[in-house]
Amino acid sequence: MQYGYFDDDKKEYLITQPNTPLPWINYLSNGKYCAMISNTGGGYSFYIDPRDIRILRYRYNNLPVDRPGRYIYIRDNHTSEYWSPTWQPVMKSLDSYECRHGLGYTKFSSSYQGIHSEILYFVPLEDNVEIWSLTVQNTSSERKELNIFSYAEFCLWSAISDQRDLQYIQNVAVAKYSEKNKAIFYHLFDLSTYVAFFSSNGNITSYDCDREAFIGDYRSEANPISVEKGRCGDSQALGGNPIAATCNTIVLNPNESKKIIFVLGVIKEKSQATQIIHKFEKFENVEIEFLKMKEAWDNYLKNLVAETPDKDFNSIINIWNPYQCKTTFDWARYVSFYETGIGRGIGFRDSNQDTLAVCQNIPKLVRNRLLELAKNQFEEGKVYHIYFPLTGKGDYPNYVNPLLKFFGDDHLWMIFAVSNYLKETGDMSILEENVDYIEGSKEILYEHLRKAIEFTNNNTGPHGFPLIGTADWNDTLQLHGPNKNGESVMVAMQFHKALLDMSEIAKEFNNKNNIAKYNNLAKKVNEHINKHAWDGQWYVRAFTDDGEVIGSQNNEEGKIYLNTQSWAVLSSVAPLDRGFQCMNSVRKYLVTEFGIKLLNPPYTRFYPKLKGISTFPPGLKENASIFCHSNPWAEIAECVLGRGDIAYEYFKKIAPTSKNKIAEIHQTEPYIFSQMITGNDHPKFGAAKNSWLTGTASWTLKAATDWILGIRPEFHGLKIDPCIPKKWNKFRVIRNFRNAIYDIQFLNPEHLSKGIKKIKLDNVIQENNILPVFNDGKKHAVEVIIG
Amino acid sequence: MQYGYFDDDKKEYLITQPNTPLPWINYLSNGKYCAMISNTGGGYSFYIDPRDIRILRYRYNNLPVDRPGRYIYIRDNHTSEYWSPTWQPVMKSLDSYECRHGLGYTKFSSSYQGIHSEILYFVPLEDNVEIWSLTVQNTSSERKELNIFSYAEFCLWSAISDQRDLQYIQNVAVAKYSEKNKAIFYHLFDLSTYVAFFSSNGNITSYDCDREAFIGDYRSEANPISVEKGRCGDSQALGGNPIAATCNTIVLNPNESKKIIFVLGVIKEKSQATQIIHKFEKFENVEIEFLKMKEAWDNYLKNLVAETPDKDFNSIINIWNPYQCKTTFDWARYVSFYETGIGRGIGFRDSNQDTLAVCQNIPKLVRNRLLELAKNQFEEGKVYHIYFPLTGKGDYPNYVNPLLKFFGDDHLWMIFAVSNYLKETGDMSILEENVDYIEGSKEILYEHLRKAIEFTNNNTGPHGFPLIGTADWNDTLQLHGPNKNGESVMVAMQFHKALLDMSEIAKEFNNKNNIAKYNNLAKKVNEHINKHAWDGQWYVRAFTDDGEVIGSQNNEEGKIYLNTQSWAVLSSVAPLDRGFQCMNSVRKYLVTEFGIKLLNPPYTRFYPKLKGISTFPPGLKENASIFCHSNPWAEIAECVLGRGDIAYEYFKKIAPTSKNKIAEIHQTEPYIFSQMITGNDHPKFGAAKNSWLTGTASWTLKAATDWILGIRPEFHGLKIDPCIPKKWNKFRVIRNFRNAIYDIQFLNPEHLSKGIKKIKLDNVIQENNILPVFNDGKKHAVEVIIG
Repeated sequence: MQYGYFDDDKKEYLITQPNTPLPWINYLSNGKYCAMISNTGGGYSFYIDPRDIRILRYRYNNLPVDRPGRYIYIRDNHTSEYWSPTWQPVMKSLDSYECRHGLGYTKFSSSYQGIHSEILYFVPLEDNVEIWSLTVQNTSSERKELNIFSYAEFCLWSAISDQRDLQYIQNVAVAKYSEKNKAIFYHLFDLSTYVAFFSSNGNITSYDCDREAFIGDYRSEANPISVEKGRCGDSQALGGNPIAATCNTIVLNPNESKKIIFVLGVIKEKSQATQIIHKFEKFENVEIEFLKMKEAWDNYLKNLVAETPDKDFNSIINIWNPYQCKTTFDWARYVSFYETGIGRGIGFRDSNQDTLAVCQNIPKLVRNRLLELAKNQFEEGKVYHIYFPLTGKGDYPNYVNPLLKFFGDDHLWMIFAVSNYLKETGDMSILEENVDYIEGSKEILYEHLRKAIEFTNNNTGPHGFPLIGTADWNDTLQLHGPNKNGESVMVAMQFHKALLDMSEIAKEFNNKNNIAKYNNLAKKVNEHINKHAWDGQWYVRAFTDDGEVIGSQNNEEGKIYLNTQSWAVLSSVAPLDRGFQCMNSVRKYLVTEFGIKLLNPPYTRFYPKLKGISTFPPGLKENASIFCHSNPWAEIAECVLGRGDIAYEYFKKIAPTSKNKIAEIHQTEPYIFSQMITGNDHPKFGAAKNSWLTGTASWTLKAATDWILGIRPEFHGLKIDPCIPKKWNKFRVIRNFRNAIYDIQFLNPEHLSKGIKKIKLDNVIQENNILPVFNDGKKHAVEVIIG
Repeated sequence: MQYGYFDDDKKEYLITQPNTPLPWINYLSNGKYCAMISNTGGGYSFYIDPRDIRILRYRYNNLPVDRPGRYIYIRDNHTSEYWSPTWQPVMKSLDSYECRHGLGYTKFSSSYQGIHSEILYFVPLEDNVEIWSLTVQNTSSERKELNIFSYAEFCLWSAISDQRDLQYIQNVAVAKYSEKNKAIFYHLFDLSTYVAFFSSNGNITSYDCDREAFIGDYRSEANPISVEKGRCGDSQALGGNPIAATCNTIVLNPNESKKIIFVLGVIKEKSQATQIIHKFEKFENVEIEFLKMKEAWDNYLKNLVAETPDKDFNSIINIWNPYQCKTTFDWARYVSFYETGIGRGIGFRDSNQDTLAVCQNIPKLVRNRLLELAKNQFEEGKVYHIYFPLTGKGDYPNYVNPLLKFFGDDHLWMIFAVSNYLKETGDMSILEENVDYIEGSKEILYEHLRKAIEFTNNNTGPHGFPLIGTADWNDTLQLHGPNKNGESVMVAMQFHKALLDMSEIAKEFNNKNNIAKYNNLAKKVNEHINKHAWDGQWYVRAFTDDGEVIGSQNNEEGKIYLNTQSWAVLSSVAPLDRGFQCMNSVRKYLVTEFGIKLLNPPYTRFYPKLKGISTFPPGLKENASIFCHSNPWAEIAECVLGRGDIAYEYFKKIAPTSKNKIAEIHQTEPYIFSQMITGNDHPKFGAAKNSWLTGTASWTLKAATDWILGIRPEFHGLKIDPCIPKKWNKFRVIRNFRNAIYDIQFLNPEHLSKGIKKIKLDNVIQENNILPVFNDGKKHAVEVIIG
């Protein structure tokens, strides 16, 4: 079943029915002010850190789902009837409904009994506000008098207190209407933290700042007493639950339309409000800011544009996947409709991966982020698992084993992320930036990377594999125990890849000793893995604290894990025969209709030696769901093996576009990747969970652009190495790289997946498949013949 | 406006209208299993610790308020109409509605379209279950086929995770229907922690374990799809939001009635369910357990029964106040509809005070609690501020100053509580119990008390008053600062009282040196206070970190505080003239229509030197609300001064019964004290907040019984010292004390407040006003003539 479709020309996803299986949302954000909004108007806002500077309140996991939000109520004063142009919260069946999620904005168009309304929600690029721009048109033949109500519920700035300290929070916050500013101001009585304002350029005829006054006893957002009565109570909030509700009366003749702008913003001092309120009173300023924002997104997307025979693939690669990548770059796994924005902070591992696919778009932000992340490293090379954006303070999650306060993999991701940044930007200067360690000492970033290598090298277990610490990439594979001996084969493979990357970096950094050192160490690691982790048909996954193997045919459950197969190939650990063999095992045991499972067979009971992973019912989360993040690694591995059809098949299996027609099964947004899709060992096979914030975003985009389309930045040029579906005749990619535009036409006359017969660059035949760095701001025509 | 009335004969409060200004609730608990239930069926359950073993989920501060709960839906299968006999969640207007909150149970009676239903909810004394006993009667003249649905929504056992880790919690819990047990079982997939079961002795024709299956998309508890359709979907929950919903079909001929029992319980192992389910399948067992519970409460209340000319006073003293005292004893300030049960734990100060008024009823539990509390003391005498009931682990709240990790008063409350226990029970053996300090060493309790004295004596500030630490009784009077110099005059007065109490205890404990030592120290403290804290018309409250006085006529705001006036008198610090003078100042500056304010004038802005107290808008919380806890101290002070009419006036001002007719102003339950009543500096003057868990409960009962009625345990007898309204002619109190019953008749022929002319005990005239200890299990007649 389908609830909407892709409007690629407008770069929008258009929802035609409000009652989607779950709220389908959008992030409206300038990277600091962030407003999440669903297709029925639900959602909340925060500034910089959703834990510490929460602006709007949201009741997660509520009934009905998805309340409250940024609500407009329209009341026909002749009939006293009222409705929500976003369907929720009144949920009156509308005569027409449309929600368009675009890049950085969401637009509703709906009609009810002769009134057509449009609402545009967006966050401007610079100002820390959200705009609600309403247009109401009388499409009937009668004059209409309407009351337009707005509604937003404030959260205590501290989102933790807002949930936990109920009897306290209702006695400290204040919201008052200022006649002078035509705005409601919300802040703590003591004026610590921030001030929020809600203004409107409409003629506010009444207002409410107190939730209970507006809503009424035993009512909800669906039937507020003020809306029912047709006017607000002019309540102030001194304590209680502060809100911003306003009422504007407008009269519309037939065909007449009117506009009202509502602005919700955050400022440090009340005095800063006047200027920003005045700015957004003017319709033209709203229009200008909207166009600026749209232009910024257009520019963002220009860095890679693919035209392939597959429209859905283009839609993902050109629009939605880069969009999601910017969102994960901004908010990691911290805040969504499923991540409550109070616990997880910004993950070190996550955030490093989130830089991978946005480097070409926002190199400066990536540079800053990489340096910020590196500050979370200890002198011995390990790192904090998370940090909080407002304070910059690092930490470990509460399940960390106090005796093993590290994750086997965390620090290694820094090497992959920096390597990717260097290859994309050529900016070697980052390696020479001085960066603090937790302890306070400083070294240049290059040394930080070396410390990461050293940490893994210095912390191996009885089988000679890296210690897993509390866990590795699989946070729930908790093999830590009293012997402190759990080992990770996946980390060993990542270590191998990190050594190869570091050897390359050392070469570019003119550190000759290190080149050989890391290459030799890589060789040792490679041999060790192939000697001790090969299980006959695939690579094992790990060793428990007491030395038991995990992910082997000798296990009763959890015999085969995906990640040590894909990583064996993509880290260059597996010789070609084993590469094919282990990826064939993946195909045989793990591939399902809706994607590749993380392991098989699932654990049917709790294993104290494994902990977390066996706390989920079979088919959920790390216990054999289709954990999407690990699917692109398999796609890349298949590209390495040259099997373009299989790689593409895997891509399509989890691609959101593939879910558009089975939305009632998939449930989450069909324009965005989710963290997981329920596996085939669970009755709800195919149901996705936890959309938006997932490493799937950056890795899938990398798999698609760097490996399937095969346009891969290297230190000294752009490598051309596609691995595509055989049936493709041709495709084109326009790729910005180091201040030049490569307009690359691929022809596939022999219907192959891989191989280059000829490359012409600016009409000159190339000797190899590395396009040089031009740095000339110009467009260069490239023709590639696959063969 | 009135929503109900007191039915004293049944010891019930009867609510006649469901839409009370706030949910009016009851605690159904055996001290371990606890079920809170509102007058519309809302509420939640936990076992031992609401943070760690939460059973049912509750959405605090929800819209509509008070969801979810323990819901029954009745559906008439002929009309397909359905309703809630508790009004919520369907909120269909009922033909009749009645909710009776009794002691340990809540009973609903309601009718809709020819169906009368009664539901009795209670928790038995021993089994850790809650019973929902439903009776449905056909009062129409037609045969009715009804579907009866039950509904309860489970919480992840960890209530913190349930709120914070949304994307995780929906992947770890399981609920399944067991045909064999006719029950739904709910537990974590890994079977860690507990198992909940929900069973019914009805014929379950369908069930749902998955919330979304039962409720349906974009619906709520108000209109579940399963109820609308007339049958559940037989869903299991493997992850998701587990619930227990059942459907029973019953057919009723005219006048016929049928009963169904539902049981929700908690067990450690699934195998323990069978026995308990079988037990409560039988109607007679439910009846027996209900009667046993009622009997236990009747016995509880027998320890003090007052018959005064004031029916409302009797109702409070004989029923509701002791009932509330047991609740605060059980749950301190930890868990209610306003305290979310995840942060505050059991307060040391709170819990000591909560023992004061329950000693005569549950001496053994009090003894255990006092010893448990004492374990939270450090060797230097200070104590942890809170502890958690499941783990016993002590802690400080997050706002504690790390440099001043103590509260000026906490440790002293232990002395008052132990002294009270000793006088009530005569059990001196408790003083010789060995009790751990935090550091691991042990000493007898008597030494713990001595250490408490020492701590205050060793930690005084530049003005010679005790250091306030992070704060004192007024948690928000945060005078801590870089000099570590904040001082509390209130703590000094408490110290004086503690010294007098310790001197008495030392005497009983035959420690002669200490008697003199403490008396001498008390004298010094008394002189110091009277020399340095007298402000001319009242006593000042405190000194800030940099030595500024607080609570003086020299302050612009916060000139006079209540507590240093009431405590000056009740701690025997104030000479008689100053006692009258300061309590007259209270009367002049702090007394309002609805109770006595904590201070005046309120702070109109934030003061960095005072912190917390100035973060509330004027009239809320500690910033000049009627903070009820401190009102009984003023009542006691007036009794000490002999002004019975004033004491009684103060009692009545905050008495819940006085609020019954102004419930729309007071808002919270009119049978229970609340933490605060909004002060007259706030537009919502008179609105109470945070009902149930407040030190008001035990102190008001002490003020009423020990000081107004004037029956006060002493080490060697029961002191008779009433201080009553002059207009009372006579009153009678039956008081159990150390295994004897004192049936005391008071006559007041001269219409005085205070003074004893004659006391006859068993027809013999007494020489003094101390009734001897009999310990003979017999009733003794006492006649007191006031004069």
